[in-house]
Amino acid sequence: MAREIRLGIAGLGTVGANLVQLISQRAASIERDFDLRLVIAGISARDPAKHRGFDPAPFSWYSDPVQLARAKDIDIFVELIGGASGPAENAVKAAIAARHDVLTANKALLARSGALLASAAQSAGCEIAFEAAVAGGIPVIKSIKECLAGQKISKIYAILNGTCNYILTRMLEHDLSLEQALREAQHLGYAEADASADIEGFDAAHKLAILTALAFKQQLAFKNIFIRGISDVEAQDIRGAEHFGYRLKLLASCEEHENGIIQAVEPCLLPKNSSLAQTAGVVNGVTIISDLLGELFLSGPGAGGMATASALLADIIALAQKRGTNMRPAPLFGVPIGNLTAARKAERNRQLLPGFYIRLCVEDKAGVFADVSKKMARNDISFESIVQNLESLFPNPSEHKHIVIITHAATRHNVEKALKTIGEAGYLRQEPKLYPLLKL
Amino acid sequence: MAREIRLGIAGLGTVGANLVQLISQRAASIERDFDLRLVIAGISARDPAKHRGFDPAPFSWYSDPVQLARAKDIDIFVELIGGASGPAENAVKAAIAARHDVLTANKALLARSGALLASAAQSAGCEIAFEAAVAGGIPVIKSIKECLAGQKISKIYAILNGTCNYILTRMLEHDLSLEQALREAQHLGYAEADASADIEGFDAAHKLAILTALAFKQQLAFKNIFIRGISDVEAQDIRGAEHFGYRLKLLASCEEHENGIIQAVEPCLLPKNSSLAQTAGVVNGVTIISDLLGELFLSGPGAGGMATASALLADIIALAQKRGTNMRPAPLFGVPIGNLTAARKAERNRQLLPGFYIRLCVEDKAGVFADVSKKMARNDISFESIVQNLESLFPNPSEHKHIVIITHAATRHNVEKALKTIGEAGYLRQEPKLYPLLKL
Repeated sequence: MAREIRLGIAGLGTVGANLVQLISQRAASIERDFDLRLVIAGISARDPAKHRGFDPAPFSWYSDPVQLARAKDIDIFVELIGGASGPAENAVKAAIAARHDVLTANKALLARSGALLASAAQSAGCEIAFEAAVAGGIPVIKSIKECLAGQKISKIYAILNGTCNYILTRMLEHDLSLEQALREAQHLGYAEADASADIEGFDAAHKLAILTALAFKQQLAFKNIFIRGISDVEAQDIRGAEHFGYRLKLLASCEEHENGIIQAVEPCLLPKNSSLAQTAGVVNGVTIISDLLGELFLSGPGAGGMATASALLADIIALAQKRGTNMRPAPLFGVPIGNLTAARKAERNRQLLPGFYIRLCVEDKAGVFADVSKKMARNDISFESIVQNLESLFPNPSEHKHIVIITHAATRHNVEKALKTIGEAGYLRQEPKLYPLLKL
Repeated sequence: MAREIRLGIAGLGTVGANLVQLISQRAASIERDFDLRLVIAGISARDPAKHRGFDPAPFSWYSDPVQLARAKDIDIFVELIGGASGPAENAVKAAIAARHDVLTANKALLARSGALLASAAQSAGCEIAFEAAVAGGIPVIKSIKECLAGQKISKIYAILNGTCNYILTRMLEHDLSLEQALREAQHLGYAEADASADIEGFDAAHKLAILTALAFKQQLAFKNIFIRGISDVEAQDIRGAEHFGYRLKLLASCEEHENGIIQAVEPCLLPKNSSLAQTAGVVNGVTIISDLLGELFLSGPGAGGMATASALLADIIALAQKRGTNMRPAPLFGVPIGNLTAARKAERNRQLLPGFYIRLCVEDKAGVFADVSKKMARNDISFESIVQNLESLFPNPSEHKHIVIITHAATRHNVEKALKTIGEAGYLRQEPKLYPLLKL
């Protein structure tokens, strides 16, 4: 006789609706293969009348997700409401208080209140699973928590926002402007009407905060993330990067340095043939560097209803197999909350980076090139490449010229100091464009 | 008070010796983070006197691995002896009979006796973990068994043999012959003195047999694998593939077709910028296609003492966390042995493939090119590209010429029929070279 596991599912957007259908469709094979009878004991959403592609009649309807979360007859509460606070947070807290296991795809909630929730779950003896919250269906959470258990992770480099990656890919391949590519993404359902959380880097930063805590067994520190989105990326710099053998990507990274961790979300240049540079479209990619394994790379669909639902389904099966046994619940951050170290932030600007991409739009007059070179040299910045007037990349309709530089290894501090003195010389016609360059 | 978990480790080659050291070095952090005290209760190898980089004195020494496997005071038996039968098999069976959990990196044993061992483990109520047996430290077993649980996998394409991939990479990048690249691999410790199991494709085939059973929930069918190694790959065909935009790789693949599964290990041409084509050196790569997630790609070190030991350590921690609880052991093939379907083999030669690479070394006389074209057309084979006398790729020191063809989609049956009639015409000066081409 298969064990019955009862689910409460709150939030019936694309992902939630897909999950409800999926569980119904696959109930028989899941019962056969895992000896589990998954029963949807209740569902909750704002509008009971909305058409969602499935008939809600067989399921108990809760207008209040907190009520569903508290229901005595559920084992696992699935939170797909979204939002960093409000109903999602209240419902998850209520589920934990009722000692239900919790499943969520809510990165904003975890990035903001993960410590509190982990602590509550630990006290209540229940588990919070969240593979779907980071990189969709790619098993990055499981990889860090389980596959790399016992290892020391030193770095993670990742493309965590499918919307931005789609936009950058389209700008590169079809020479679109950011606005054109964004409209296309919105039209295809890859971006929401208000895409600012994606474009400005906050979505990727939420995911990064979670990965950093997991990887370094340190407390969540969303506020320690340097965040710069793609809203001021221009197609000509994407082409410029390609010209020098690099590809511009919105990279989320965390690295251990002597004095702590550097976390950043920002557009970076990556070597064109690296796995992350090759990660195109709405796909996500994650490179994890650890002391025993070395470099592990994972890529796959980072968003989309079915891809996310697939991660939820795997988590449901795993939670269900443990539910009711005397096996200890897995801690949210892989280790007990008390074992997490305080977040230490390393000074980012003094770190030697492999290089920078710099584009200067300058007045077209003699001596400018020499002055730029001199001021860079004075700040210990040497060049891997420098080009001027590359008409094919940077059309110069007026009296402006573009100088593009790929530097050798340098600190951001020195680069910014040099750019400041260059700015004071008065020949810049636009703010300089500056992107770090990684040699993965 | 941390739970004590006692390990018996049999086989102290590079991986075994690394594992013993690793467990000693990380005991404290594992105890802190996972509340587990890992104790090495016994070790076993053939030669007690051999230097292995650690002092064996603190550990009980067993000259017979079967004795260690039976020891009453161990929880988990770690088999690193190797070999498809003999001591490895006997020891694993003894460990299961004693109801110990088992950890192994032995793909040959699993590919040959996995069904029997899975069945014995299921009856005894213990678990066999084997992440390290396939693709080293890449979590491919966990991905299929857990992360894609509840999904339908349709295809796996993988580079599973680091030795062959290293050799092919060196042949491409440094224009070495297979013999030169193999000697280099042996010198660097990437290949054994007798590298035939690698070169002839058997190592990859053992791994593929395991992945196929897992992915399709079907009984192991090593004998259904078409196996062709890299021993007759020539550097000029590697260059030829590049010329047309493809890269030659030893690909392990399993695909579901209408009438069953096709499993193959053979050199194939892959689009140059695909993730698998970009997988270079001793790295392994695995692409898994499933119905909900779509394409998941994983890559990382496929071999090496530490990479393998890292997968073993993760499995030890997972087994240890379950040991002594009333959680059910995970079945070896993801589902109970009785749920595996009979292996169905689809007819490979009648399957339409995206294309073939064909090189013909022909007598240099008029009419040959026309005759080849005619005979291909008669067998419904059309060309994407055809080149003759490409001196830079195929030096023609004598009266021979090379014709290289990339076909459009065709069946192997038709290609072989065409090549047979071409062979009968009498102008071939060598056996034709034929490699399938995939469009990943």
